[in-house]
This record gives sequence, structure tokens and C-alpha cells, in this order.
Amino acid sequence: MPSIGFIGLGIMGAPMARNLVRAGFAVTGFDLDAEAVASLAADGGKPAGSIAEVVRGADIVVTMLPADQHVETAVLGEDGVLAHIEPGALLIDFSTIRPETAQKVAAAATGSRVLDAPVSGGQQGAVDGALSIMVGGAEADFAAARRVFDAVGRVAALVGPAGAGQVVKAANQLVVGGTYALVAEAILLMEASGVDASAGLDMLAGGLAGSRILELKRGSMLARDFTPGFRIDLHHKDMGIVLDAARQAEVALPFGFQVAAYVQAARAQGLGDRDHSGLLAVAEQLSGRSTA
Amino acid sequence: MPSIGFIGLGIMGAPMARNLVRAGFAVTGFDLDAEAVASLAADGGKPAGSIAEVVRGADIVVTMLPADQHVETAVLGEDGVLAHIEPGALLIDFSTIRPETAQKVAAAATGSRVLDAPVSGGQQGAVDGALSIMVGGAEADFAAARRVFDAVGRVAALVGPAGAGQVVKAANQLVVGGTYALVAEAILLMEASGVDASAGLDMLAGGLAGSRILELKRGSMLARDFTPGFRIDLHHKDMGIVLDAARQAEVALPFGFQVAAYVQAARAQGLGDRDHSGLLAVAEQLSGRSTA
Amino acid sequence: MPSIGFIGLGIMGAPMARNLVRAGFAVTGFDLDAEAVASLAADGGKPAGSIAEVVRGADIVVTMLPADQHVETAVLGEDGVLAHIEPGALLIDFSTIRPETAQKVAAAATGSRVLDAPVSGGQQGAVDGALSIMVGGAEADFAAARRVFDAVGRVAALVGPAGAGQVVKAANQLVVGGTYALVAEAILLMEASGVDASAGLDMLAGGLAGSRILELKRGSMLARDFTPGFRIDLHHKDMGIVLDAARQAEVALPFGFQVAAYVQAARAQGLGDRDHSGLLAVAEQLSGRSTA
Amino acid sequence: MPSIGFIGLGIMGAPMARNLVRAGFAVTGFDLDAEAVASLAADGGKPAGSIAEVVRGADIVVTMLPADQHVETAVLGEDGVLAHIEPGALLIDFSTIRPETAQKVAAAATGSRVLDAPVSGGQQGAVDGALSIMVGGAEADFAAARRVFDAVGRVAALVGPAGAGQVVKAANQLVVGGTYALVAEAILLMEASGVDASAGLDMLAGGLAGSRILELKRGSMLARDFTPGFRIDLHHKDMGIVLDAARQAEVALPFGFQVAAYVQAARAQGLGDRDHSGLLAVAEQLSGRSTA
Repeated sequence: MPSIGFIGLGIMGAPMARNLVRAGFAVTGFDLDAEAVASLAADGGKPAGSIAEVVRGADIVVTMLPADQHVETAVLGEDGVLAHIEPGALLIDFSTIRPETAQKVAAAATGSRVLDAPVSGGQQGAVDGALSIMVGGAEADFAAARRVFDAVGRVAALVGPAGAGQVVKAANQLVVGGTYALVAEAILLMEASGVDASAGLDMLAGGLAGSRILELKRGSMLARDFTPGFRIDLHHKDMGIVLDAARQAEVALPFGFQVAAYVQAARAQGLGDRDHSGLLAVAEQLSGRSTA
Repeated sequence: MPSIGFIGLGIMGAPMARNLVRAGFAVTGFDLDAEAVASLAADGGKPAGSIAEVVRGADIVVTMLPADQHVETAVLGEDGVLAHIEPGALLIDFSTIRPETAQKVAAAATGSRVLDAPVSGGQQGAVDGALSIMVGGAEADFAAARRVFDAVGRVAALVGPAGAGQVVKAANQLVVGGTYALVAEAILLMEASGVDASAGLDMLAGGLAGSRILELKRGSMLARDFTPGFRIDLHHKDMGIVLDAARQAEVALPFGFQVAAYVQAARAQGLGDRDHSGLLAVAEQLSGRSTA
Repeated sequence: MPSIGFIGLGIMGAPMARNLVRAGFAVTGFDLDAEAVASLAADGGKPAGSIAEVVRGADIVVTMLPADQHVETAVLGEDGVLAHIEPGALLIDFSTIRPETAQKVAAAATGSRVLDAPVSGGQQGAVDGALSIMVGGAEADFAAARRVFDAVGRVAALVGPAGAGQVVKAANQLVVGGTYALVAEAILLMEASGVDASAGLDMLAGGLAGSRILELKRGSMLARDFTPGFRIDLHHKDMGIVLDAARQAEVALPFGFQVAAYVQAARAQGLGDRDHSGLLAVAEQLSGRSTA
Repeated sequence: MPSIGFIGLGIMGAPMARNLVRAGFAVTGFDLDAEAVASLAADGGKPAGSIAEVVRGADIVVTMLPADQHVETAVLGEDGVLAHIEPGALLIDFSTIRPETAQKVAAAATGSRVLDAPVSGGQQGAVDGALSIMVGGAEADFAAARRVFDAVGRVAALVGPAGAGQVVKAANQLVVGGTYALVAEAILLMEASGVDASAGLDMLAGGLAGSRILELKRGSMLARDFTPGFRIDLHHKDMGIVLDAARQAEVALPFGFQVAAYVQAARAQGLGDRDHSGLLAVAEQLSGRSTA
């Protein structure tokens, strides 16, 4: 069983590290929050006091960090992962960041191997070891990471070279955000027309308009229950990645950009800590039908 | 078993009328195309030479017409359905038209009863008797139409008062068109980024981004196979109804309006007779990546 | 001097009729509002009690009506203008309506001649005889209408065949509405960034971003003074014409459609009777920065 | 007369430096392109071989660089401007960059003073000393820079604190790009409707829809003459700044984001080296009316 150094024991990282311990890996963990490190130690991990300490001797280094700037510092920085990683060791970065940053990490990792592996499935998925993992990198490295992915996820797929995992995650968030916006407008149109929106959404859910979002969220959306779930603030961060990824790929995404504008609006309207289905509240306010 | 007068034996109407015959109804049919009438007669229906003839004596009148102007003429016109319908008879209009027109029909039908009942499921659904039927009108009339709906559809729901069926159909088309646009942008972003779009879409399909469209159409979209299916020209007509319905309901639908613009673009680019998944071709051309 | 029959003595029509009287035309006027007719009579016009009365004997018939349905009734209706107009007489329709309706009027006017001649310049322009007039129709008819146009407008141009005046008016309203939206976003971006928006707009106004709207309206917009001017409700009506004109012309206008959505939003938010520069309030609310 | 160190002698910087020489300043110039340095020396400037050399002893340092990364390196970098600038000297950065980067420069310049001063007016404006200059920073520094601004520009305004100049430039580019898109759609609507677009645009130009762009560019747009002028590639860079500035300011700019998508489209369609009025070609292609 390879040894794992785990950096980033936050809301997502902590349960992922725990699932790796449970799966039998020797996991050394580090986080700026000493309590998070202690908590992992209590569950069978080994505490570390620095990135250097966690990385040295590890066969596999795992990072799960909030955003690009944290990866820039913790991985690419002077005293970061790549400064200390063992020759031939594998770095799996589960963070959701810009494809460009993921490619920069891969390019900088001479002598080691790198996979970008952003996940979807949220905190519950992390706890349950049921994440979906979108992986960019080399096939051999993907194969080598298989047992790690099995311990934290339900499904993992290699989708292309370095950065590809991030692109797929971005595409995912574009579609998810856009679907919320479309369902919101459908609800709004029906309610404003005096239609039984619940019966109407049932029809939509059963046909070509059907989606996971309609299946899981139509009840809470109709009830204006925006308890997260996945917060607008995080979706806003992800839409920033979509904007960057689109510019890097030189593609024009009018719908994706529109989604970014509306997620920004939700955040600006104070809904940052609400569920991303809260895009409905933006649509409502736009049409002067705010129920809040 | 009530007697049925059926007006509009086109691509959708002909198989629907046939399914009513099979279900045991006495069906008298009329269409401007005499051949369509003869064909129904060959299958056990009774031919009629005019709207008046088909309507007189019928317990239930069914209309399945292409667009608002046909309903205006055939139902509301001087020699139309309402001029000849029996007192207390039930008119079921399966046509997809503007909510406003449906409400006009209902308001004009003094002495008779009216349901607006647009369908989804396409030609194949009509042939298989497997349509989804969105119904606006009174509960008692919906109950009275139950056996008709059972003969032509898989599911039918009463979604509100007169016009409500049309509103739900419009909402459905908004969501369907928008989902195509989102999936198209996701594909474009992945392909332009050098990602394995097929593997990427598999990931999307399995998570919160999942949809009936991803499930059924991702293969054909990746292959740029835009064989209809449901034609852009028809979706364009339906988006016109979305625009009208939104204005009538006084709601602002920026995503819906954007979808309308892109479906219009597809049509203007000569894709009118291609499947609505052909929105992908519009997205591609916008980014200078046309594969045609 | 030709005799004029004038139908529609509202906010715009009344001062236009008055300017025709002043210019020396013999003007007979009609409106459903008897007071408006009396008021014109007091100013030197001749009152009439019906469309028939006003049209009979007139060399030129002028209509200035609120919307398509009024033109349908007053011009195309059973007892309307075309039923009574003298052979060879000229109908000038100043109403802002759909190009399609204007073309229908022109097609129905066998034996008489028709110009569609929507105006811009607002109530003040009507009072001052300083309207801009966009004219569709034949050159000879345009020449024949020259003295009428001189009496009510500052500039008139023949822009194409029947309906062309309406298309240009629609294009005008698209650009005006869109420019307000752009200026609104510029203001919002500057204010939210802690910039002196007034100094910033001065810079924009002086360069390639400069526009009549920046010139005339930046002060009132910065002060959130949305006293009309031209009301959102009217601009909303006009954006409906833009939607129709775009569909008729088979062109995809994503920006125009977006403008339509935002003008609808303004109206739905209760700003229908405010100036169209009030699009700024929609932009503000979207970003949670409402100052109201 | 204060001495000036000028870094960045490109298409814009070279004529600006020349105008400073002409105004009587002692100008030392540096560029990575030795030929540009020699050319300035031939015109009365003093050549320098490094940033350090140009900065040392200069009362005012001027930078005119292509993009954020160049400013990061040349100003903030290890051997950059701020490493060598004299205590109390003034740095005027004419580059168009992200507000955030401008603020980073200002924050890093302890001991010296900084103005961000992006310009509009293009190459011709630089040659003619007729640029418009949007300035962020302190009043005293703005006053101190007055003679520099007079030498290179026609108008300069202090619009707020550090970064404010960049925000106003971003707002300017948003409005300019958006106005092109609106005018493009107006042209398209008129042409597709059989209207005399030239006569129509004349009407628009004379009324509330009027703009500098309509005034200067309607002829070339109608003729599809997209000779630059200001290139799409540069406008694309600037729209990237708009996206960033909007995210920094936490405002939702649906129109601005849409403009960014269309400028990206123009670039992706191979129009990067054409004038930004070439947005018309994108609108045309979207509607299947490409004349190319």
C-alpha cells in the first residue's frame, strides 16, 4: 500500500483523507488549521507540521485546496510540494482550479508525475466516498491512482492530458448553473401565468426537458428552500474558471457567460451562502416577483 | 363510447386519429389533404368533407393543427368548429399555440367545453400512443377526456386553467432548447481544449449536470448527426410562443430569449430541417470551429 | 393646399394636428375622446364624429394610433379608413407598429396610396414640429407628403418600401434601449469600483464611446432621476415590435433580444411609467445595489 | 523640466515618447527591441540598455506596456521599475491592464508615487498627441503629471484612486464594443428586411440612437471595410479586463459579458487583426448572411 501525504483538510479534504485511512493507506496530513490535523490524527492519520514534512517520503501526494492562489503557493511556491516531492512520486490535485494553473503545475513537476482530479458530489459525496472524479494526465498515472480514486469516489475517468480534468469540471459547472437558470425561468413563466407549476414541472421532468436537477431540486425550488447543498459562492468561483477556460480555449460561450453573470448577481444580492438553486431568486427579482 | 370528430390529419394527427380508432372510438376525420382523409378511412375512420360535417354530432371534437393561424381559422373562423359544435360537446385542441390564442378559444366556446392539450414526444410518440399531454381547462372536462388521452398518450396532467397546457409546453421547449445550447457549449469547450469530449460528457451525464438530452443525444451530437427527430423549424415556431407567453405573463426571461435567438440563428443558417440538437452547429460556427 | 383628415388626437397626435393647422392645412380631426376633438376645433381644426366622416373628401388621411390593434381596427376594420378613403388619396400612418401590419395596410389599400411613417422625438418633438420621420413606401408618395412632413418634423427620409419605416424605427429602439443598458453597466461598474462615475462618464462621452444618450442623459442617470421623457411601457411595446421584426426578417439578434428582456424586467419591476433610462435601476437591482 | 524615463516603445509608446521629447522633456527610453530605442535616440531621446538604467535618476518614469504580465515583470519584477525608482519619483503607467494589477503596483510602490493612466484614441491619437487619458491616483500626483499629459493627450481626467483609470478604460471598452454589436444588429435587421440601411442609419445617427460610432463608422461598416483602426485582438484583451474588473467589483454585467463573448467569437473566426467594427461580421454569420 503506497503512503500518502495529504494537504488541505477542509470541508472536502478532511472526509477524503479519512476515507483513505479507512481504505488502509498510511496517510500523513497537513493543514494550516492545527485542529484539522489533530482530528485526522485522532482518526488514524499521522499529523505533520509543514508541507515539507508531509511530502517527504510520500509515494503519493494529495492536495485538496480552495482555489488557484492556494495551489500556486502550496504546490508551486518556494517551500511547496514540488520543492520537496520525491522523485517519481505522484501528485494528485483534487482542487478545482483553472486549467491553465493545472497545466502550470504539470509543467513544473519535472521528475514527478501529476494528475489534476477535480471532483463533484459535494461534502456529502466526500463523506460517503462517492465523489465523481474528472482526471487529466497520463494513463499510467491514472492507473497508479486507481486505488486512491476508489477510496474517495464512486466513479473516476481519465478525460485527457494535463488540465483536462479541470476543463470537464468547468463544463460541468456551466451546464449545472445553466440548467438552474432554465428551470428558474420555467418556474417563473408558469407561476406568473397562473399555472400549477408543480404539476408542470412534473411533466417537464418526465420528458426531454428532464434532468437530474429537475429530479432532485424541483421540490425545494418551488418551496424556495435554498439551504445548501452547494453554495453560490463556490459556484461563482467555478464560473470564474469557466470564463478563464473559455478564453484559454478561444471559444465563445454566450450561455456560459450569461450563467456567470447571473451567479455573480446571486452573490451580489447576498445569496452567496445559499444553494446554487437560488438562481431562482435572481430570476424572480428580475421580474419583480420577489417572494422574499 | 363517445364519438369523435378529428380535424388535422398531418404527421402528428394521422397516427393519433388511428390510435383513437384502435381504442374503439368512432372517429370521423377531416383534413384539407383529401389523401389523409382517405387514409384514415382505410384504417377504420369515417371520412368527412368539411369542418361542419366532422363537428356536427360529435361528442368530442379533436384538433391537431400546425400553428395559431390555423386554429384561428379552423376553430374560431366563420365556418369553423365553434360555429358548428354541439351544445355541451368537448373540444380538445392538441395544437401547440400561444396561451393567448388558447384562452381566446376557451372564451369563445360558450355552450361547449374546451381543453388545450399540447403534446410532446414527437412523431414516434404519436405513432406509439406514448405522448405526454399538458392540459389546461376544467377538472371535469379533463376527467371526461381521460379515455382520449389514454389512447394517444402515456401521461397526461391537468396543469391549470385555459391556456395552462400551452404555458407548460412553452416552458418545456425553453428548457429543452436551453439544455441543447448548454450541452453544445460544454462540448465546444472540451473539444477546443483538447479534452476527450466523449469521456467528459459521460462524467457530466452521471452527475448533477445529467439530463435526458445528455442521455439520449450526446452520441449523435458528438458525431454531428443532426437527423431529426424534432426539427429546428418547429422549435423556432415554439420559441415564438415562448416569447409571446413571456410577454403575456410579464416576466423577463433572458435565457429563454437567448435560446430564441439561437434557434433563429440555426434556422437562418439553413438548419431548419435538422434536429434541434443542431444548435451545436450554431455554437461551433460562432467560435469559428465549423466542421461542416 | 390639400385637405387632411387626422385620426388619433392623443399625446402625440394632438400637437401634430395643431402644427398642420398652423401650416395652413384644412384639418378635420377625429378621436374616440370627444374632448380631444373639441380641443382641435378650438385651435382651428374641424371636428368630425366618425372615421368615415373624417376620411371622406380628404386628400390626405393621417393616422397616429397607439398600437397594432388600433390600426387593425381603425384602418383595416369594417368601418375603417380603407373602407371610406377617396380613390387616389394618400394615407400616412405615423403610428409605431409591426412592419408586418404596415405591409398588410399597404397591401389592403388598393386604389389609394400608403406611407408608414413612424416618428421619434417624443412629445416635445411633436409639440415643436421637430420629429424625425422614418418613411416606408413609394417615392412619389413620399414627395407628395413632403409638406405634411415639413409641418410636423425636422427631418424625414424615405428608407425603403412599405414597412421599411417601421423596421428603421424598430432598429432605432433596439439601439437606444441597448445603449441605455450599456451606459447603465458602465455606471454600475464604476460606482461599485469606487470610481468617480461622473468624471468617468465625461471621459466616455468625449471619445469613441460617446453617444447622444451619454450627452443628454448621463446627469439624470447619475442622479437616478427617471422622470419621463419616454416611458418604459412605450419602449416595452416597441421591443415587442423588434422581436416581431426580427422573426419576420429571419435574423438572430441576441443583443436586441436581451434588451427586450431587460425592458420587460423594468416594467415588471414597476418602472413602466418611468423614463427608459430607468434600465439603470434594473442593472442596479441585479447587482444588489438598489438605491431606491 | 523633469527628466523622464520611458519604458515600452511600441506602436503607442514610440510616438508618445517622441511627443514628450518635442515638448522639451529629457527622455531616456528603453525597450526590448533595440531598434525602437535607436529610433527614439535619433529623434532626440537618450537610449538606455536596461530598466535600471532608464529608471535611475528619472523624476518621472513612464511605462506603456502591452498587458498585465509585462507590467508584472517590468514594474513589479525583481529587476523592475520599483526596484530602482528614485524615492519620491512618479510612475505613470499608461498601459491598459486590470484594475487589480494597477492597485498592486500602487501598493508596492512604497516611497514613490503612482498613477494608472490608460489611454484611448489609438495609434493616431498617440501620433497626434491627442489621446484621452483616464487617471487613477492622488490629486497631487495628477497635478504633477499635468505637463506629461498635455504633451501626449488632448484630455486627461482624474477619475478616482489607484486603479480607477483602468476601471474607466474598461467601462469605455464595454460601451464601445456593445455599441458596435447594437449597430451591427440594426444594420442586419434593416438589410434583411429590404430596407435602405444607409438611409436608415442616417436617421439613427441623427436622433437619440446617435453615437460617435454611428458618426464615424457607419460608412465603413455598410461597406464591410474592417481595416483597422483598433484591432479585435486588442479589444479581446480589453474585454478580459472587463470580466476581471466586474468580478473584482462584484457586479453582474450581462451585456458586458455578452460583448466579451462576441469579441471572442470575432477573434475565433479569424478576425483578430481586423477592426473592432468587424463585430458586424459575427452578427452576419450568426444569421447565415455572411457576405465574405
